Amino acid sequence: MRLRALGLPRWQRGRDLVCRQTLFQHSTRTVLCASQRRAYATPVEPPQQLKNDTREKVVILGSGWAGYVLSRHLDPKKYRVLIVSPRSYFVFTPLLNDTTVGTLEFRNVLESVRKRNSKVEYVQGWADDVNFVDKFITVEPSVLDPDVGHALTGPRKVNEERTNDVLERTLHAGGTSKTQVPTFPVSYDKLVIAVGCYSQTFNTKGVRENAMFLKDVRDAQAIRRRILELFELARLPIIPEETKRYLLHFAIVGGGPTGMEFAACLSDLIRDDISRLHPQLLKYIQITLYDVAPKVLPMFDASLADYAVKQYKRQNVQIKTSHDVEELRKGFPNDPEARQNQANQVKGRVYTIRTKQEGDVGIGLCVWSTGNKNNPFIEKALNHVRRFPVRSAQITQGGATAVENPNTRQWIIERDARSGSLLIDDHFRVNLTTDAAIDAEVNGDPDHGHDPQPHAYVKDVFALGDATKLKSGALPATAQVANQQALWLAKALNKYPDPEAFAQNKGFTFRNLGVFTYIGGAKAVLQGPPVSGRGGNGNGNGNGGVASKASGLNFRGWIAFLLWRGAYLTMTLSWRNKFLVPIQWVAVKLFGRDVSRF
Amino acid sequence: MRLRALGLPRWQRGRDLVCRQTLFQHSTRTVLCASQRRAYATPVEPPQQLKNDTREKVVILGSGWAGYVLSRHLDPKKYRVLIVSPRSYFVFTPLLNDTTVGTLEFRNVLESVRKRNSKVEYVQGWADDVNFVDKFITVEPSVLDPDVGHALTGPRKVNEERTNDVLERTLHAGGTSKTQVPTFPVSYDKLVIAVGCYSQTFNTKGVRENAMFLKDVRDAQAIRRRILELFELARLPIIPEETKRYLLHFAIVGGGPTGMEFAACLSDLIRDDISRLHPQLLKYIQITLYDVAPKVLPMFDASLADYAVKQYKRQNVQIKTSHDVEELRKGFPNDPEARQNQANQVKGRVYTIRTKQEGDVGIGLCVWSTGNKNNPFIEKALNHVRRFPVRSAQITQGGATAVENPNTRQWIIERDARSGSLLIDDHFRVNLTTDAAIDAEVNGDPDHGHDPQPHAYVKDVFALGDATKLKSGALPATAQVANQQALWLAKALNKYPDPEAFAQNKGFTFRNLGVFTYIGGAKAVLQGPPVSGRGGNGNGNGNGGVASKASGLNFRGWIAFLLWRGAYLTMTLSWRNKFLVPIQWVAVKLFGRDVSRF
Repeated sequence: MRLRALGLPRWQRGRDLVCRQTLFQHSTRTVLCASQRRAYATPVEPPQQLKNDTREKVVILGSGWAGYVLSRHLDPKKYRVLIVSPRSYFVFTPLLNDTTVGTLEFRNVLESVRKRNSKVEYVQGWADDVNFVDKFITVEPSVLDPDVGHALTGPRKVNEERTNDVLERTLHAGGTSKTQVPTFPVSYDKLVIAVGCYSQTFNTKGVRENAMFLKDVRDAQAIRRRILELFELARLPIIPEETKRYLLHFAIVGGGPTGMEFAACLSDLIRDDISRLHPQLLKYIQITLYDVAPKVLPMFDASLADYAVKQYKRQNVQIKTSHDVEELRKGFPNDPEARQNQANQVKGRVYTIRTKQEGDVGIGLCVWSTGNKNNPFIEKALNHVRRFPVRSAQITQGGATAVENPNTRQWIIERDARSGSLLIDDHFRVNLTTDAAIDAEVNGDPDHGHDPQPHAYVKDVFALGDATKLKSGALPATAQVANQQALWLAKALNKYPDPEAFAQNKGFTFRNLGVFTYIGGAKAVLQGPPVSGRGGNGNGNGNGGVASKASGLNFRGWIAFLLWRGAYLTMTLSWRNKFLVPIQWVAVKLFGRDVSRF
Repeated sequence: MRLRALGLPRWQRGRDLVCRQTLFQHSTRTVLCASQRRAYATPVEPPQQLKNDTREKVVILGSGWAGYVLSRHLDPKKYRVLIVSPRSYFVFTPLLNDTTVGTLEFRNVLESVRKRNSKVEYVQGWADDVNFVDKFITVEPSVLDPDVGHALTGPRKVNEERTNDVLERTLHAGGTSKTQVPTFPVSYDKLVIAVGCYSQTFNTKGVRENAMFLKDVRDAQAIRRRILELFELARLPIIPEETKRYLLHFAIVGGGPTGMEFAACLSDLIRDDISRLHPQLLKYIQITLYDVAPKVLPMFDASLADYAVKQYKRQNVQIKTSHDVEELRKGFPNDPEARQNQANQVKGRVYTIRTKQEGDVGIGLCVWSTGNKNNPFIEKALNHVRRFPVRSAQITQGGATAVENPNTRQWIIERDARSGSLLIDDHFRVNLTTDAAIDAEVNGDPDHGHDPQPHAYVKDVFALGDATKLKSGALPATAQVANQQALWLAKALNKYPDPEAFAQNKGFTFRNLGVFTYIGGAKAVLQGPPVSGRGGNGNGNGNGGVASKASGLNFRGWIAFLLWRGAYLTMTLSWRNKFLVPIQWVAVKLFGRDVSRF
């Protein structure tokens, strides 16, 4: 989900859109250009058989763990479900790593949002804005967006082709401004925001441009292609020894489960397949994992993490903790020309990673996996509530003024001060509060400040998954959490369609089912739930780890590996993939991984 | 295979390279720049365990039906086999159509040239030139070439990134000219030219830029993506009715087996899957197949072809024969602005196909399949034999002068006057003759003209597959022919490594095994071999069809379909794919085609 207009940096675009939107809502429609009006005037959802449909319409933003799982579990007899998401499929992320090396195929870990027997509707687009009062969202189509399928890291360079492109000829064949981004409104009865996060780069120099990420299927595809390409390059008789060493040095940044599992998969590929296909290259290969922290896999007990680190050493994966990556650039290490003249650099041959501790190191590929950062949709589009949604919102506390005429106040969406995530209650409802500073300015009335800070929740707007933080305490940004949240919300909405009854329902509690990570060589580490049986909720460390470290049932080695595979098979995958994934495992066992590169 | 240097159109590049090469061979080495010398000075093949290798080295150019099959059947005890090909895999072309709609996955029809247990070596690159005297070829790496995996149609626009890119920094880190294309030599004992053909566009306006082809796996990938994209686009609420009709109009040009099978696969996809996923779009869908000839499937008996055409009609595929396509462009039909201003056209939304008979028609996708055209490597690089390979060539006829001192003549490679294909004898040897015109000019001796035209064959250079024509008569450019040729050559070389014995061996004859085509709806047409049992060789129609039309055993309908599937399963595919293809067929039957688009 994302904001965009006319060549401005994304956050400015966001602001711009919000402004235009505000005008619109205050019914100064004349300000809008003709094409814009036409877009807005389009009937929201025309299908005829739905005209007599009395079901409530639930619009879900996002097709990740939270959004997809929720859509599958909402009762189609009670709800008409519409997913709005830039990508038309769900990625089974725990197995995405396996596709980067060919242990699984890409489609084995994808579930199309459109399915033969599913009643879920779908629109492919980015949500640009939400109108809480009139209950609609604004959607920008993403069908032709080349970024879809890749991890997103922040505002992009404006793509010439896209700005005077995409749909506007189709839309405005009559011939209005070519720079108008086409959008259209989609109405909702209930809205669920499950847009997830972008990838964090900490603004490290060159990372956005030169690193590969591991969040979506096209990332995995690009990595697989690159790995095989590097070996093919290194086989050319004209490549000098030193360059081979650079090309076959694989760097991974981030010692969380994603980075560690990728290292494990890569080392499997090299041991099982590359060793037979390119035996003469083995001596050049190096895998290095960098982490800024003193310890990898922080969510595991020390004994399990130590066991994992030992296994990695045996597989020739160097783990360099307490290393700060300062830059990632194209070109050879210690090449002053390259450092000066980035623009002239050739694309994609040798890269250089620079750490504070070691300086320049030549590499062929850098996979970057250092966690999440906030989605611009959350950060910008949901910044201000332009009009207080009187009918949808329930004021829970606040000064007399707030209750009497809430629209005299500038309401904002409650969010975590540190991370900017949406702060939600245990019913996943979006909460509102007022911006004291803006209030004072707008109303010229400093007295508002003396009232208790008003609070409200929106009855028909929910948020869950990585983009949110529970008021009762942060949960890790994992598939397990998003999955449980979605299941809870689906069950609660199916049982209590009415907001009042829903509000009476007991809130969500997270049940920590443990955490596991594949560590290569058919081994895994598996840390069971803490002995208390539940927990986690309310005492999270907030940064990718499962909270409680009280010793539960732990497994390691091949037993953990078997449990790991078994667990995944029983999970969210469709019957198609439940059928194909084990077959693919057998095929890899029998015939090796497929190394065709295309 | 292809020629390239420094921003010239390809054929000029070819010429340029040839000239430089000629200089080099006449040992005016000082003309070459430093980097060039370095590239040439690189030891040809260093692996140590091969230094004592006494086997003959067979270099195969190409990894298609001819090259790949040959490489698998040459005896590794007798030959060291090296494939040089721009793409690192073999495509099982008869099933490529199935991957465009998801009936099979891409990797199901690919065989990597590098295999775990194979002794075949491989270098990923384009052959640029052949030196018949010193017995080496010149190779330009293609590892990073973005064109690899796509059908090639002719000289490309110069890719900025590629020209100052690819490998030269890696190569010439010292810092010589950035525009030098790196090449390296590869020596051979026997050379097999199996480079195949490019795709024919007849220079129809806009086809190269706007059509999709169906020759390689990335073509299939692009088509699959585009088909699903068009349906997703048409589902957006902002797309007007008329535009939906354009977007969902699929045009296919070429009524040969490839075009017809693609139409069949597309209609299967629509009937089985799209009808359930997008029922509201069915009314907009149209499939039209254009052919300039009055009849499609010309290689089949009239009764089978008529049956096929009837089936297509039932599947709502319109077949428009005797239609001349004049242009394919981006933009809406009958839009004067679009016709004027191609550069401003938006990319890839609606296309317009213009035929002489019907004028402009709006479409969403055009798949172009009108046969083969000559490979520039065949056309240009092999144009002149700079020095007569005295030791390798056997002069079979010719004037006394030719035999006494063949280097006084300008020898050329014998080729078909009309198509430019290499003209080969029934042992697949490349043949030489002299260029009378050049001879006269060089020697100032018109008497040469009175001698019988000299002829020779090269004992250690073979050619087979689509790029060749047998002297005894053209065979169709099919997988069946290339496959049989490769098997014959492998067997003959394994049995008679010595050229003299090889020459005594009985030549190749083609055994027509019949021809079949899938026509959709689990039906096929299968025309058995002509009653005489053999034939074809010598009476081909030369243009994609199997020659003889004497009535043999014909099948049609689902029986032909079952035979068709069974036949493919027993063919060239590896055990991996023999295992995975039927499973994929079952999965599609049970769960439908996968429609994830990424």
